[in-house]
Amino acid sequence: MNFGLSEDVANSIINASNEVISGKLDSHFPLVIFQTGSGTQTNMNTNEVISNRGMEIYGETKKGKTLKIHPNDHVNQSQSSNDTFPTGMHVAVLIDLNRYLLPILRNLELTLGKKVKEFENIIKIGRTHLQDATPLTLGQEFSGYHTQIKNNLDHINENIKYVRQLAQGGTAVGTGLNTKKNFDVLIAQEISKETGLQFETNPNKFEGLASHDAMTHLSGSLNSLATSLYKIAYDIKILATELKELKISNVDILDEVLNSCVQVMGNHTAVTVSSNYKFVYDLIKICMDILN
Amino acid sequence: MNFGLSEDVANSIINASNEVISGKLDSHFPLVIFQTGSGTQTNMNTNEVISNRGMEIYGETKKGKTLKIHPNDHVNQSQSSNDTFPTGMHVAVLIDLNRYLLPILRNLELTLGKKVKEFENIIKIGRTHLQDATPLTLGQEFSGYHTQIKNNLDHINENIKYVRQLAQGGTAVGTGLNTKKNFDVLIAQEISKETGLQFETNPNKFEGLASHDAMTHLSGSLNSLATSLYKIAYDIKILATELKELKISNVDILDEVLNSCVQVMGNHTAVTVSSNYKFVYDLIKICMDILN
Amino acid sequence: MNFGLSEDVANSIINASNEVISGKLDSHFPLVIFQTGSGTQTNMNTNEVISNRGMEIYGETKKGKTLKIHPNDHVNQSQSSNDTFPTGMHVAVLIDLNRYLLPILRNLELTLGKKVKEFENIIKIGRTHLQDATPLTLGQEFSGYHTQIKNNLDHINENIKYVRQLAQGGTAVGTGLNTKKNFDVLIAQEISKETGLQFETNPNKFEGLASHDAMTHLSGSLNSLATSLYKIAYDIKILATELKELKISNVDILDEVLNSCVQVMGNHTAVTVSSNYKFVYDLIKICMDILN
Amino acid sequence: MNFGLSEDVANSIINASNEVISGKLDSHFPLVIFQTGSGTQTNMNTNEVISNRGMEIYGETKKGKTLKIHPNDHVNQSQSSNDTFPTGMHVAVLIDLNRYLLPILRNLELTLGKKVKEFENIIKIGRTHLQDATPLTLGQEFSGYHTQIKNNLDHINENIKYVRQLAQGGTAVGTGLNTKKNFDVLIAQEISKETGLQFETNPNKFEGLASHDAMTHLSGSLNSLATSLYKIAYDIKILATELKELKISNVDILDEVLNSCVQVMGNHTAVTVSSNYKFVYDLIKICMDILN
Repeated sequence: MNFGLSEDVANSIINASNEVISGKLDSHFPLVIFQTGSGTQTNMNTNEVISNRGMEIYGETKKGKTLKIHPNDHVNQSQSSNDTFPTGMHVAVLIDLNRYLLPILRNLELTLGKKVKEFENIIKIGRTHLQDATPLTLGQEFSGYHTQIKNNLDHINENIKYVRQLAQGGTAVGTGLNTKKNFDVLIAQEISKETGLQFETNPNKFEGLASHDAMTHLSGSLNSLATSLYKIAYDIKILATELKELKISNVDILDEVLNSCVQVMGNHTAVTVSSNYKFVYDLIKICMDILN
Repeated sequence: MNFGLSEDVANSIINASNEVISGKLDSHFPLVIFQTGSGTQTNMNTNEVISNRGMEIYGETKKGKTLKIHPNDHVNQSQSSNDTFPTGMHVAVLIDLNRYLLPILRNLELTLGKKVKEFENIIKIGRTHLQDATPLTLGQEFSGYHTQIKNNLDHINENIKYVRQLAQGGTAVGTGLNTKKNFDVLIAQEISKETGLQFETNPNKFEGLASHDAMTHLSGSLNSLATSLYKIAYDIKILATELKELKISNVDILDEVLNSCVQVMGNHTAVTVSSNYKFVYDLIKICMDILN
Repeated sequence: MNFGLSEDVANSIINASNEVISGKLDSHFPLVIFQTGSGTQTNMNTNEVISNRGMEIYGETKKGKTLKIHPNDHVNQSQSSNDTFPTGMHVAVLIDLNRYLLPILRNLELTLGKKVKEFENIIKIGRTHLQDATPLTLGQEFSGYHTQIKNNLDHINENIKYVRQLAQGGTAVGTGLNTKKNFDVLIAQEISKETGLQFETNPNKFEGLASHDAMTHLSGSLNSLATSLYKIAYDIKILATELKELKISNVDILDEVLNSCVQVMGNHTAVTVSSNYKFVYDLIKICMDILN
Repeated sequence: MNFGLSEDVANSIINASNEVISGKLDSHFPLVIFQTGSGTQTNMNTNEVISNRGMEIYGETKKGKTLKIHPNDHVNQSQSSNDTFPTGMHVAVLIDLNRYLLPILRNLELTLGKKVKEFENIIKIGRTHLQDATPLTLGQEFSGYHTQIKNNLDHINENIKYVRQLAQGGTAVGTGLNTKKNFDVLIAQEISKETGLQFETNPNKFEGLASHDAMTHLSGSLNSLATSLYKIAYDIKILATELKELKISNVDILDEVLNSCVQVMGNHTAVTVSSNYKFVYDLIKICMDILN
């Protein structure tokens, strides 16, 4: 899939891109994260680093021969920051979800499931309004936590559906002007192959460029998860400290959970507010750093 | 399904309940909405109004004969505010969603779909960062809005899944102590029949009583919808005023949409914060008035 | 201060306005609260009700004689919804603050001050991270709550400064076009006299019309108060329930406080979001119902 | 003010502390920011680095002689993370405000003031609801922005009052158990001298330890500022792009402002939520990174 690039140019771009990915060119990306909505600056920054480094690599490997790689004509080719940037965001978010959050959550769900079994014969008092009510087993109490996490996992997985849709191929305003035919479908297949994750081209590029609904939906599900984790951590903290029903080796970890959850809730407000304000392709993308 | 109530008592309770539903006893519910988390006061208020009015009705129709209907033993029977209240919230929310929000949204989606067709040959300038970029049709622009609403409809419908699950039958702490066998399954069937909506018993009553995750998930999807509607209304407002590309008979309606959306976002923060804080059955339920 | 109105017209407007204030004409104000940003509809609604009812009253008292009172020329005279509406909001907010919130807060501060004295010799264990630390008196613990409320009172009073500034006299865009000379200063004096509260004309009408910063500042201080009340109510709830250190006749009232506080926090998000978006006089005013 | 420390120990602690401040020991502070509420881990981390490095420095300068510096007995001496941590937060916040935010804001206010003069004779159309209304000068329009920033500066300065109050000397629960007499007053004077900023001891240590109201108040005023900056930046963006009334050399900077403001609003939600939940000294401090 080189779409009209010569093999030399294509390979040089690939080599330079791999160096960018490796992190060794990080110092050539000096921009702050709070930049213009469409990410134009970072997009051009990337194009220029790749073209320059691509030409250098070519010269290094070809003993001084030169090759013209233009940041716009060759690197940015067939693309616009308007479709590249939301695509980059979706890909980065799905990779991170699969690398960090989802495995941790699945592990937490398994662990809580084991605790439900382990605690199934420990009878304790159930409380309502912090006051004694009727008995239940500790396993039953933990089955509530287990179900919360299981439902949150399902909930996040449902919301990921929209993150799988890529805007690439829409170019400047969604019409795909200047792209090669079928570029949108092929690039989604290529990215799926490369990442081992399931992506598809967004069936409506106008939505994919002009809204960030996929991110807002996902942020809503992370906010939900944060409220559930907060409740569970706080319950366990009280059970372990004031009520002395549980022994926890490290109570402090619960405060770390509480603090982190609160930051996720705050970020969700930021995502919500920034989702509000957009006109056509005037987007606030960069601040949607919702997974950290 | 009278679960041990005599026919006279059951019928009197039904008659009194119908009067409560009709609204003619509203003045007997003087409580403010910001009450204790479990809704205990409103639950007991309801039990007492039903038992008193039930006895009155019996006397009226049976010419002075008396019948003992106890608010706890007969009306509250087999229940706790801890399972009744979340059940009532889920039922009320699903009825309102189906009566108001979902039909309006479906209609909006249809209307936008028609506009996509109607505008398919009107060529206009596309803008990026509020500045002229490349051309597209007005129909393409509206297809973005159409897709946003379609996706939000799907998104809300997915989130409704958890609202369909009823806590009834869990009683005070989720164990179902004091309920008749199978009451949870049967009551969910009965409510489904009565409302024409699909409900099921929550497979884990401990989750159903101790968390409000279903409401937080749903509120997240309403917050998403609000950000989408805000974007669409604001786009159309600018297209109609500053850019004079569209003629709108009533621009003010767009401001009503913007204002309403902002209140939904604020309520979502309230739902998020109140979801945070709960211990076992110490819930903040009442303030989750997320649909209005 | 009749600014060119004949005595008959002025008196009829005053009489009609008093009926509006009394509430007996409420059914003639059918508009929803989520209307256009400037409040134009409600402004015109008010002008029309006053002019019509003013003419009726004149006819009733003058036995059938007629008088022309025009909604724009006589009632709205020298004004625009752009200056009238923010003025109305500031006046309403300051009246309500002085009638409800501030007296209650002052009373709470006095009560907590008494408890500090009353509890000064009751020694108890101090806790850090919900675990026992070193002793203190219950009076010392309550002195913390007392100081929180005292500081919040000061804080709200400082923020009120901007609410005292009235936009009236700026008319449509802040220049005061079409107003009588000195109308802005005189109307602020008149409103101060009428309400017994201290108002002044906003020294910069452009700010007064185009921003709602006064409301955002105030909302911030109410949000602060809500977090303080939440902390105090929650502390006392735990001291009264789990720790059994305090006896409270009505624990439920604490949940009412917690619930109300959460709604204030949610409304603060709504105020923050709606403060964001305005262009020149395109304001979202109505939803800033921050005191309820 | 060495409060019982030998001169050798005191000097070694000072020398080690200066190295900590210089940043060269940063790698010895490996903790994540989302830790336990009271900051106990970071407090002990600091004590241990200072004691160890203090002993090393003594050995280095005294040619191998040894000196016992205990992290608790000598470095933490007379202190608790419960008073040290809020003190550190207040000091850091006031230094940063004076170093970064306040000078920038004062400069912005001056610049806007100059623009008011510069633009005082440029007549333009005023708009209401994005539609043409009556004329005003560009200087008048900018005088609204100027007043907004001036008021926000006043507003922040008022809110700083509470940040000037230091909890140091309250020790574990606010009683000052184990401190030297007058330590609280003297340390506030010392910190004022050292920083050139005005601090005072908090007159009520119980409030100073058990609440973070000072931070919530301040965060409210930063949230207000963010909404004002957002409005101004967005107005200017539309004036410069769609309406072409202003020429701006770098429109992108306006998007940076918008994005940054949104993050401040999100952080304010996080501060608000974390302010909610505290019991006695169980605080969530670390996440209040409200100035960045």
